[in-house]
Amino acid sequence: MEKITIVGAGLAGSLLSVYMAKKGFAVDVYERRPDMRKAAISAGKSINLALSVRGIHALKEVGLYDEIKKISIPMYGRMIHSIDGVTQFQQYGKDNSEYINSVSRGDLNKKLMDLADEFRSVKFHFNKRCMGMNLDKNELYFHDELTQANIAVKSKVTVATDGATSPIRMEMLKIPRFDFSQEYENYGYKELHIPPNDDGSFKMETNALHIWPRGSFMLIALPNMDGSFTCTLFIAYDRSLGGNASFEYLDTREKVSDFFKENFPDALEIMPSLLEDFFGNPTGTLITVKSYPWCVDGKLAMLGDSCHAIVPFFGQGMNAAFEDCIYLNECITNSPGKWNDIFNNYQQMRKANTDAIADLAQENFVEMRDLVADPRFLLEKKIESELYKRFPDTFVPKYTMVTFMRIPYSTALNRGKIQASILHALSDCKSSIDEIDWTAAETLVKKELAPLNY
Amino acid sequence: MEKITIVGAGLAGSLLSVYMAKKGFAVDVYERRPDMRKAAISAGKSINLALSVRGIHALKEVGLYDEIKKISIPMYGRMIHSIDGVTQFQQYGKDNSEYINSVSRGDLNKKLMDLADEFRSVKFHFNKRCMGMNLDKNELYFHDELTQANIAVKSKVTVATDGATSPIRMEMLKIPRFDFSQEYENYGYKELHIPPNDDGSFKMETNALHIWPRGSFMLIALPNMDGSFTCTLFIAYDRSLGGNASFEYLDTREKVSDFFKENFPDALEIMPSLLEDFFGNPTGTLITVKSYPWCVDGKLAMLGDSCHAIVPFFGQGMNAAFEDCIYLNECITNSPGKWNDIFNNYQQMRKANTDAIADLAQENFVEMRDLVADPRFLLEKKIESELYKRFPDTFVPKYTMVTFMRIPYSTALNRGKIQASILHALSDCKSSIDEIDWTAAETLVKKELAPLNY
Repeated sequence: MEKITIVGAGLAGSLLSVYMAKKGFAVDVYERRPDMRKAAISAGKSINLALSVRGIHALKEVGLYDEIKKISIPMYGRMIHSIDGVTQFQQYGKDNSEYINSVSRGDLNKKLMDLADEFRSVKFHFNKRCMGMNLDKNELYFHDELTQANIAVKSKVTVATDGATSPIRMEMLKIPRFDFSQEYENYGYKELHIPPNDDGSFKMETNALHIWPRGSFMLIALPNMDGSFTCTLFIAYDRSLGGNASFEYLDTREKVSDFFKENFPDALEIMPSLLEDFFGNPTGTLITVKSYPWCVDGKLAMLGDSCHAIVPFFGQGMNAAFEDCIYLNECITNSPGKWNDIFNNYQQMRKANTDAIADLAQENFVEMRDLVADPRFLLEKKIESELYKRFPDTFVPKYTMVTFMRIPYSTALNRGKIQASILHALSDCKSSIDEIDWTAAETLVKKELAPLNY
Repeated sequence: MEKITIVGAGLAGSLLSVYMAKKGFAVDVYERRPDMRKAAISAGKSINLALSVRGIHALKEVGLYDEIKKISIPMYGRMIHSIDGVTQFQQYGKDNSEYINSVSRGDLNKKLMDLADEFRSVKFHFNKRCMGMNLDKNELYFHDELTQANIAVKSKVTVATDGATSPIRMEMLKIPRFDFSQEYENYGYKELHIPPNDDGSFKMETNALHIWPRGSFMLIALPNMDGSFTCTLFIAYDRSLGGNASFEYLDTREKVSDFFKENFPDALEIMPSLLEDFFGNPTGTLITVKSYPWCVDGKLAMLGDSCHAIVPFFGQGMNAAFEDCIYLNECITNSPGKWNDIFNNYQQMRKANTDAIADLAQENFVEMRDLVADPRFLLEKKIESELYKRFPDTFVPKYTMVTFMRIPYSTALNRGKIQASILHALSDCKSSIDEIDWTAAETLVKKELAPLNY
């Protein structure tokens, strides 16, 4: 039985272990943390995940979706909270058959590990911190956090799924001609909490992603299975950028309390632990990682956040990593045993697309925090929706291409740009959708866009 | 006497040690390599340096220029070698008072070390490979390459001048919110050699930077003190990009010989050791590094290539690093003892400018290998020269702003872009400078550009 070593038992590593077991490999998964199913992992730094079509497809391919569906809550659209407490629902898809799914990172990871454990050929090794590698010797080095022993593990074929701060990638930096960038946003985030009602019911609409867009900052909330919401506040680090909406300014309980009273009064009412959460939870950073190549000979490949971490504003980080698994698996099918070809084909299929979703995710931060409350943006959304109805194979909204389809992200990015310029041209100097000249619109669409092939 | 530790005794570290000694600090300089003045350092991977106004000014500030001038050869312009052997001289400045200087990296480094050694407060520690740092403990870690001992050095104030592959920067990567990118060109380079005549004289024009521009690749040659030229061939790595002009293709003596016969026949005649050099010397990589922040509290700052390595095509890498020394020194003068302020002010003064020269250097590769042989480019150069004469305070050529002035690189980049668009507009559909409407040109220049303040 051919062996594969996976470094990192996060979402990508756990799912990949199932893919590899199904392909007939003996899989060893090394993970820095203790087994999160037994030990409580320090929380307070998670943004709930939005599982959508790409991730769902990756789960279905190995028969795991039915189990994951049980811990997912459908979100059919955005619920926009104005400062005066008025809410407005913006549907994500064409109808309720198109939705994204709120799922807890911890619950999903544990469930994936349980499902992987059902394969006798998958073995998890916890508390093993990766300290480096020597590809000439085919060796990986781990430090056992429990016994303090240092371990060398022989591995001919390794896949690194060790996340945005990947230790394996630190080793790749020493290899000539390795392109790499890591870019932090000037914004950080703080996890907050809305508990359920006493009867266990939700305090707000369950099946929506709640957004309090405030221009240069925002609060979001995603539903949990227990009736609570996990909220995330995104604000600037520095006062010079964010003014009072900054971690630098918000350094006392009074300031935080006043800030929420002023900006999120409806949320404040249902956040009894706001001040404890704000000062108890760590401040999360938002990073975009790009790198290339993702592999070294047929010996090592990176997958998921380790080679392409993105900001969370399109809800695609996990979905993109899960999609990596589909493509890597396909490359193994197409070139069995030829790991050099497998890894090369895999990285070539994925690189342009993960670059594209990185850019899309950064763009979407502006849309979420600002544009969703802008009249022209809302008019453009209406025009977009109408164009989608009139030209369902040609003018597919960017959000739909990214979230509800499996077309390459780079196609979504490119067509999204063209569509944005069309919407911008059509909405110019217009105040209502009734003023649109649909004959001119049709001419423009047909000139700029070919039907989408998929 | 306050202590400063410098990591890296390359060009930047050696010059900085003099600046710091003159400021009254006790300076310890740790260097991975042996003392290059005693041991032969493996060569064959150096592009000759082009010392220009910024670097010269930095040397003059600490009284070192007279000594360096002695090992420098003025280059007044580019000597363009056509494929048919015809040469054409393009002057760099307005007259022979504006020139750049060819200087050997090794000779310059040794001379700077000698000059630093004249200060009793400067101490070099050779064969000490930096293994990391612990800023909480104010400790740097070195491995002694001779004794194999591991050494911890206490240091309250450290400046890292440890080059493009900086080990200190690898440690910075572990610090939250450190932005970093390293980007390799798809081109590599090979050092080659043109020996002097038997009487020690030069085989080509001495006071020029020789270029054989061939569109997608090029050869350059810079004069040495001994009558020889150091040549550098820049070609693509991969055949898919460069065709026959690629390291991938050029894998036999015959292919290299044929390639030079076809593309550089005049150079080939005076390169007796071409094949030995081509296959004996390593292939150099071309990297652009950007990072930020450059400092941690008042404890550590990076300077030179360690935080902003650039490609060599504007001849500004060393000049930019030397300019860093001027600014850091000025910040020390302005906030004595306040290292947090010193390092913060220094990085804020420099970051936008080193980003700008990185971009300028990448742009200039296209100019050097391709445009210098293009008729429209040559017409634009003529118009530029005439506009410079007519508006000497306003329309200053980009090359002049970068090379012969000390205005901020970012100003040179921004004005260079505006000027390029003016030149492009004026040269449109023109075949000769006689067709230019200078009244219209004046209107355009005055509309787009304010006089340069410096």
